[in-house]
Amino acid sequence: MIRRSRIAILYAASLGASIGVFFLIRSAGRSLTSAGTPRPEALARPTASEAPGILLHVLLALVVIIVAARILGALFRRLNLPQVMGEVVAGILLGPSFLGWLAPEAASLVLPVNTAPYLALISQVGVVLYMFLVGLELDMDLLQERTRAAIAVSHASIVLPFLSGAAIALWLYPRYSANAVSFTTFALFIGVAMSITAFPVLARILTDRGMQKTRLGVLALACAAINDVVAWCLLAFVISVAHAQTGSLLFTLLTTIGFLCFVLLIAKRGALRLVRWQTAKGRTTQDIFAVVCAALLLSALVTERIGIHALFGAFLLGTVIPHNSVLARDIREKCEDLVVVLLLPVFFVFTGMRTQIGLVHGSREWLACILIIAVASLGKFGGSFLAARWTGSDWREAASIGVLMNTRGLMELIVLNVGLDLGVLSPVLFTMFVIMAVVTTLVTTPILHQLGESGAPPSPAPAAS
Amino acid sequence: MIRRSRIAILYAASLGASIGVFFLIRSAGRSLTSAGTPRPEALARPTASEAPGILLHVLLALVVIIVAARILGALFRRLNLPQVMGEVVAGILLGPSFLGWLAPEAASLVLPVNTAPYLALISQVGVVLYMFLVGLELDMDLLQERTRAAIAVSHASIVLPFLSGAAIALWLYPRYSANAVSFTTFALFIGVAMSITAFPVLARILTDRGMQKTRLGVLALACAAINDVVAWCLLAFVISVAHAQTGSLLFTLLTTIGFLCFVLLIAKRGALRLVRWQTAKGRTTQDIFAVVCAALLLSALVTERIGIHALFGAFLLGTVIPHNSVLARDIREKCEDLVVVLLLPVFFVFTGMRTQIGLVHGSREWLACILIIAVASLGKFGGSFLAARWTGSDWREAASIGVLMNTRGLMELIVLNVGLDLGVLSPVLFTMFVIMAVVTTLVTTPILHQLGESGAPPSPAPAAS
Repeated sequence: MIRRSRIAILYAASLGASIGVFFLIRSAGRSLTSAGTPRPEALARPTASEAPGILLHVLLALVVIIVAARILGALFRRLNLPQVMGEVVAGILLGPSFLGWLAPEAASLVLPVNTAPYLALISQVGVVLYMFLVGLELDMDLLQERTRAAIAVSHASIVLPFLSGAAIALWLYPRYSANAVSFTTFALFIGVAMSITAFPVLARILTDRGMQKTRLGVLALACAAINDVVAWCLLAFVISVAHAQTGSLLFTLLTTIGFLCFVLLIAKRGALRLVRWQTAKGRTTQDIFAVVCAALLLSALVTERIGIHALFGAFLLGTVIPHNSVLARDIREKCEDLVVVLLLPVFFVFTGMRTQIGLVHGSREWLACILIIAVASLGKFGGSFLAARWTGSDWREAASIGVLMNTRGLMELIVLNVGLDLGVLSPVLFTMFVIMAVVTTLVTTPILHQLGESGAPPSPAPAAS
Repeated sequence: MIRRSRIAILYAASLGASIGVFFLIRSAGRSLTSAGTPRPEALARPTASEAPGILLHVLLALVVIIVAARILGALFRRLNLPQVMGEVVAGILLGPSFLGWLAPEAASLVLPVNTAPYLALISQVGVVLYMFLVGLELDMDLLQERTRAAIAVSHASIVLPFLSGAAIALWLYPRYSANAVSFTTFALFIGVAMSITAFPVLARILTDRGMQKTRLGVLALACAAINDVVAWCLLAFVISVAHAQTGSLLFTLLTTIGFLCFVLLIAKRGALRLVRWQTAKGRTTQDIFAVVCAALLLSALVTERIGIHALFGAFLLGTVIPHNSVLARDIREKCEDLVVVLLLPVFFVFTGMRTQIGLVHGSREWLACILIIAVASLGKFGGSFLAARWTGSDWREAASIGVLMNTRGLMELIVLNVGLDLGVLSPVLFTMFVIMAVVTTLVTTPILHQLGESGAPPSPAPAAS
């Protein structure tokens, strides 16, 4: 009991201190004026006349996207890097940063402007389905791993990057913020963007290296799972702050909490009943699958309507289906490949189309980019390393934990796209953060290798995620 | 050998006679002038301003579509009618014929005009994937069932409805044809629309009634498979005629034949290699799945570019993968439910949005509608019945074959949507043919029941297709 109360006090103290520090930063930043970068161009306007030909363009885009993603993914796999990062890089290469700059005609042939709204919708639906699968895979038992180490590391790996993100927002806001965003929203968002750890990519790296059952692997997985849930809650909060007209923030928060309770209490029971129905039938019939689909879309719809993005609803619904049930396994089998092979690469390309590395020119911009990478890495690594050391890991294990938690992967890209859509990030800042996400994720495996923490020789992974 | 040559002579004679009759009809129709119904309104013009909210609308539409399709499907299943027709009816009910007429506000809330282009794309992609699955399930061995009966019935079940369709085109053309379509194209299209038999729905009805292994069941399946392939070839020909500027028809036909040879000779080998790769790996990896996806989209892309619709490429690619391989089974498992549960209902709703039963008003229009149903049914039933009787079936078996071949299901809807897109069908004619497709498919099961040809008591089918 002493331990529990100590944890509670520690928790409250660190929470209080973090909020205090954030308010200090906020008061320092309130006098700043936004850089006033105009919001990015809205999507192209499809007109009726092109409708008949649109299928042709979309099919062409999809073929090119799948092939490019697979080739780069296979290349990265050969280099012992996460396959999914190869797909992300493929997306960036197909965008204005490479193909659009090298061969504008080819780019506008493969990805003409009029396909953008359709690809946007496909990528959004893909990410919603993907977040559902991530929620489905989330082992809630990991969240119960209430070891001192897991709690300390996961919270330190959020608090430190969050606060250091908010701190450099002081420097970024007057230089690179988008038009008409308040400092509070901006600082909150930068903080969240720094705090993301990509649970799926981390899990994949651990599995690929045969480390998922080691003490280190279990600790890292538990930390990443807690981190994920906390960071997504934070993001939902930031989005509601960004969306809120004065007064409606409270409404957004209340409806969010109401919906959360509804899903965790009532929909959870429905999910358990569905699992029993599935067990009774002996197989996942199309009717059961239809119920899951409808519930998933409805949940995404509600959170989108509340104003905290469809992603959360999908993720939340995924978490209420027991992750080790046959139902969960069947749903994964029925959706995963189509989502991972066909839809996620569309999201990467859509992200790539919005990433304009050409915008980052001049030494000041590259300095800012390096600063962002440094702050993100040091915050994440430092927080996790210190907390791990403090809870009894040796320096090598602590360093490995720190490196692993610095994996941001595609989760970061999802958050960044939300920021760009909200008008919090300017296109140049979006690009810098995309570079940060790619760099921090890519350095993970080589550094881990250097630290010699692999339980087994690295082997190529067949599946991306 | 005598038999073979007799069949060949019979075949050539009936082909020659059919072409002769068609040219007679054509020469009679050339002097007619088109009704000149303007082409249907093009899709709504989505503008950039609505882009952020579009995800919300699409999610809402998808939820409503899934729920409506499932409820009507379950209802039809209870009534021992094909579940898929319940989903089709759900689509029509959500369109202007029912919901839009009963509660226009609700209709524009659930399916606002700005979602139409997105739903159109989703439904097109869904139908492309579905046709791939149909091709995948097609048992090429059935096509080898070179019994006299199968050949006679399948050809009679195309020739008679085709010619009677072309004949009533003489009456329909001056009254209901769309603007600027030539009589030749119109008559060809009406003929094809009359000749469709829905292999998947027919197969499902037979399985549900435990008839798929009976003499009658095998014969009907073989006939429907041959009918399918021939009718789709005819449709491809009609589309190229409709598309062709003078001179380019030859080009379209040559490229089609070239692509057909490429797929059946070279892609077929690739498919066999893929099956061996899959067997060697022991499971269908994401890489293998990605190759299939890319090939499927590419094949659809090529046929769309040639001008004979993406459907054919998808269907064709499906046929080259051996239907009883583990690869085919895995692909079906990975795609079927998502396509059948989520995407096909979107197609039905999209069809429903274009079906305006309100356009069929007044006794002349309903007379035309009844005439279309009568000609379609009598042509299909008559042709199959006579051929079956002639090849030795008793009257009951012949009647059952006739009724089964009259199943049009969703294949007919696919063809009709192509016709509307091409500008061959006017909205009112489209509506009449949709009614015809629904009616002819729905009467199949009750009539079969009356004929007492069920090998087993009808049992509810769990899956739609």
